[in-house]
Amino acid sequence: MATKRLADWAVNLTEIPASTRTAAVRSLYNYIGCAIGGSNHPTVAKAYTALEPLFGNRTSTLLGTANKSDLQHAALLNGIASHVHDYDDTHLATIIHPTGPVASALLAYAEYNGSVTGKDLLIALVAGIEASCKLGLAVWPEHYDIGWHITSTTGAIGAAVGVGKLMGLSESQMAHAIGIAAVQVTGLREMFGSDTKSFHPGKAASNGIVAALLAKNGYTSSEEALEAKRGWANVVSGGGTPKLDELLSQPSTTWEIEANSFKPFPCGIVCHPAIDAAICCERKLRYGYGLHVSEVEDIVVKVHPLVLELTGKKEPKDGLEGKFSVYHGVAAGLLWGKAGPAQYTDAVVRDSAVANTRNRVEVEADASLRPDEAHMIIRAMDVGEMEKHIDHAVGSLEVPMTDKQLTEKFIDQVSLVLGKDGAKKASEAAWKMGVSDDVISSISDLATTEETLRKVSRRRSGSFGPIW
Amino acid sequence: MATKRLADWAVNLTEIPASTRTAAVRSLYNYIGCAIGGSNHPTVAKAYTALEPLFGNRTSTLLGTANKSDLQHAALLNGIASHVHDYDDTHLATIIHPTGPVASALLAYAEYNGSVTGKDLLIALVAGIEASCKLGLAVWPEHYDIGWHITSTTGAIGAAVGVGKLMGLSESQMAHAIGIAAVQVTGLREMFGSDTKSFHPGKAASNGIVAALLAKNGYTSSEEALEAKRGWANVVSGGGTPKLDELLSQPSTTWEIEANSFKPFPCGIVCHPAIDAAICCERKLRYGYGLHVSEVEDIVVKVHPLVLELTGKKEPKDGLEGKFSVYHGVAAGLLWGKAGPAQYTDAVVRDSAVANTRNRVEVEADASLRPDEAHMIIRAMDVGEMEKHIDHAVGSLEVPMTDKQLTEKFIDQVSLVLGKDGAKKASEAAWKMGVSDDVISSISDLATTEETLRKVSRRRSGSFGPIW
Repeated sequence: MATKRLADWAVNLTEIPASTRTAAVRSLYNYIGCAIGGSNHPTVAKAYTALEPLFGNRTSTLLGTANKSDLQHAALLNGIASHVHDYDDTHLATIIHPTGPVASALLAYAEYNGSVTGKDLLIALVAGIEASCKLGLAVWPEHYDIGWHITSTTGAIGAAVGVGKLMGLSESQMAHAIGIAAVQVTGLREMFGSDTKSFHPGKAASNGIVAALLAKNGYTSSEEALEAKRGWANVVSGGGTPKLDELLSQPSTTWEIEANSFKPFPCGIVCHPAIDAAICCERKLRYGYGLHVSEVEDIVVKVHPLVLELTGKKEPKDGLEGKFSVYHGVAAGLLWGKAGPAQYTDAVVRDSAVANTRNRVEVEADASLRPDEAHMIIRAMDVGEMEKHIDHAVGSLEVPMTDKQLTEKFIDQVSLVLGKDGAKKASEAAWKMGVSDDVISSISDLATTEETLRKVSRRRSGSFGPIW
Repeated sequence: MATKRLADWAVNLTEIPASTRTAAVRSLYNYIGCAIGGSNHPTVAKAYTALEPLFGNRTSTLLGTANKSDLQHAALLNGIASHVHDYDDTHLATIIHPTGPVASALLAYAEYNGSVTGKDLLIALVAGIEASCKLGLAVWPEHYDIGWHITSTTGAIGAAVGVGKLMGLSESQMAHAIGIAAVQVTGLREMFGSDTKSFHPGKAASNGIVAALLAKNGYTSSEEALEAKRGWANVVSGGGTPKLDELLSQPSTTWEIEANSFKPFPCGIVCHPAIDAAICCERKLRYGYGLHVSEVEDIVVKVHPLVLELTGKKEPKDGLEGKFSVYHGVAAGLLWGKAGPAQYTDAVVRDSAVANTRNRVEVEADASLRPDEAHMIIRAMDVGEMEKHIDHAVGSLEVPMTDKQLTEKFIDQVSLVLGKDGAKKASEAAWKMGVSDDVISSISDLATTEETLRKVSRRRSGSFGPIW
């Protein structure tokens, strides 16, 4: 019954609670920022060049660029871009990054289709994300333990459900779309660290589109694709006991999208509490005492032992290594009061003043702390000892990022691609997308011109002065 | 080491033994017949209509039609067509249908590329099929038992290896192509009986092309994609003990393609021995005694009990049900001395004279027979008792189909699409493909015109007289 239940539920979903809608608006907004922010990453560029020979009618925008492609490849490339900086959202109970596969498929399809209202877009997004996350919960943790990249393995089904909703599939067609998506199980954790990691959510998005298009045209699959003895859930959970019935009997009683979280910092989540503490201390030093980090004496931060295990790199050599250095994150927080993408460029990580601050940071493992706690102690002449305890880092479910913080995150990463003005315009369009009569016009504000891209890129390749 | 070993081996494969080459020529020939034979199936038509909006440059032929599409979708659609009648080849040790995913990708890529020699095509085909079948053996039987459709799950990797060879990938690029293909695990057995079953080898072909294109452009994956703890083999065999090292340490010591087999009859393999016996008896009756089946008294065939379990349908209602009726297959063999696609049309299955013959066939389960044995006894006035024992059915590894029989199979199925003349031309082109200087010109003989298609279709929708 699970396949049919999910299909029936998705097809008949026409209203969502206000809190769910808010979560959808925020998830979409965060997705757009990440997709634009990742759009000029070398991984995306390689995929674009490789796959351009396959492009069909260029109906759909590659976010943050001056290019379009057919809907299938727009979904693929935007999906890669949204995940490539590991800066996208997280459904913490399953560690699914749920919006990438679904939204990449929806935006690409919306432009292909020519007209979609903001309301329909949000409901389709919710349907797709609920499908992904509930299926993820059903096969968690066995599925992830075996080695599947749960974001994309569930994401293809979510994308098919979302696009299927925009297409107006019947219940039966939706069940077949779910089945066709379910056979395309994409994503292995073994790929973490390579370009293929971000290929996963992109391919999931494009596979979902293919599934929905086929089902719309009467292509059949099993109507028990999820729950059958040799259906998706059993096959991908390797002898686990998938909790499908429980999760899909009344999908609307809980809304997983409301448990979606956003990363404030583009680095491993384990160092977030320490960075959060550093940012708080920077503000206190600056506004409370008029002090700069160069003027303090001792910097100590106590963290759960896992933090040093996973991100203990004291002397990172480039931006990527910086993401695995709690020292770098804390130094950035103390220097600028922020740790956004601009603080993780190769140039910043290699700068001698930054290295100097990193060297002054002492990180102590303290098993009495939870992984999402951190305790910072700063000593300065005239001030004495200043402490800051972080109970839950910003971006956690307990302390979610505010809309203002999400906007700052968006502007920070999108400015690096579109420049400040382009970032503001894109931010406004992204916030408004859910209420617009036609999302297509909003999408055009998420693209840019070759000239702007060149200008911004020239500016970036010079000094990184503006961020000081 | 397995990923690297497979990549190194494939890249450096430049010569193959004569027997391997022969097997490749026969596999390719049989594939082309099946792909053309399936090209006008409703499943293919639905997929074509659904996916046409995604088509890019129409470089590559949809075999048996007057259409082309971009290489990705040509691979997909030809892959569907090749499998849709369940009439394609079988690597019996793994029940992989190995040629579909690999050849569909290769022919589509060859036309996109503009020039490929027959020799290179055959070597690429061998490389791809060896990759698929050896990986299949490595995860057999756990992988299939869990519920994966092994044809497509291994086929994507085979397709990537084959296309990667035509592209001239370096060893390192080939390893990455294998990795990118390995994360796209497509195909669940739960889909057997629906359109999605034949989607599997098609999607595997197109996924393999995407993987090779990406790797060619420097897109990276894990270099231990197959053998890592959370790599392909462990993940898809669910706690099995994949035999990768053993199979990939010296890939050229055995050639799995030489163990590829071809189906003489488009129906469940379990009824093949009984049909084979019926065909032999028809010849004996006709040439030995000048008798027609309507003139004999008793028809008894003894078979392994599994045959009645799986194909015991006494009164099939249409062509599809005919495939699950040993009675129908035996009746066809006795009536026409053959049981090709023309004997499995709805019209033939529903014909009263055919039904009458079916009713006169007695099938007895005999546990003393092996599944590939059958024993037929026919009694006729003036002749007495005539017996025929089949030790191994035609099409088995012990009694492989001859080239002549393969040609007859090809002509039988392709005539239904292209007409007799078109079928002969296609057959010649298909046999010669492996020796041509440029396979592109041969591929044009595997296409046709709208006019021919209409003409043949008109003829078929009339009486089925010609087959009597």
